[in-house]
Amino acid sequence: MDPDAVAKAFVEHYYRTFDSSRAALGGLYQDASMLTFEGDKIQGAAAIVAKLSSLPFQQCAHAISTVDFQPSGPSGGMLVFVSGSLQLGGEQHPLKFSQMFHLMPTPQGSFYVLNDIFRLNYA
Amino acid sequence: MDPDAVAKAFVEHYYRTFDSSRAALGGLYQDASMLTFEGDKIQGAAAIVAKLSSLPFQQCAHAISTVDFQPSGPSGGMLVFVSGSLQLGGEQHPLKFSQMFHLMPTPQGSFYVLNDIFRLNYA
Repeated sequence: MDPDAVAKAFVEHYYRTFDSSRAALGGLYQDASMLTFEGDKIQGAAAIVAKLSSLPFQQCAHAISTVDFQPSGPSGGMLVFVSGSLQLGGEQHPLKFSQMFHLMPTPQGSFYVLNDIFRLNYA
Repeated sequence: MDPDAVAKAFVEHYYRTFDSSRAALGGLYQDASMLTFEGDKIQGAAAIVAKLSSLPFQQCAHAISTVDFQPSGPSGGMLVFVSGSLQLGGEQHPLKFSQMFHLMPTPQGSFYVLNDIFRLNYA
């Protein structure tokens, strides 16, 4: 599969799902998956979904500025690096963010998120 | 080795070297190493050092805001995610940036940079 297409399809799917139904992100993670969210470390699909679902806002809209990707080594993984902004419901100004994902291939020919690190970029 | 100590020592070493002598960063990369710098894709230690050395400024001072890290899988690698700002000589305002590194172990017990993705975060 074309890595450029994989990266862009993943990013589009991830943020569309995040903005519409965070609980549905669980299918992208596995037990070994790690999320570091603003410095909080969470491991495992269930705990990651619980964390994302518990974030204190109801509405969120991501706007993506850049998507970079590289192969991560012989295991067939791919690193995806995203920058953009997000608009929370009820807030006046969007927030800048950066996020990286390490996608690993599944035996079924798809990918799951092994590593996920998110940071807001305070201006 | 404590991964927290490795990540922090790497970040300190990388930016101190970048700000004092960019050409000396070559020892951190190998032939398989990849750099994506503001969307430009470069591969191999020599080409990466040439790119970093050719950036159109003489003085640069990085200030690190956050350092996050995670193990990247069974190969013993580590992902390091950095946010901060950089002040270029002659410029009035610092620039925000985000950067990720994928460090891989060497047979000598050290690490090299397999993946490096850099983006400025325009306000």
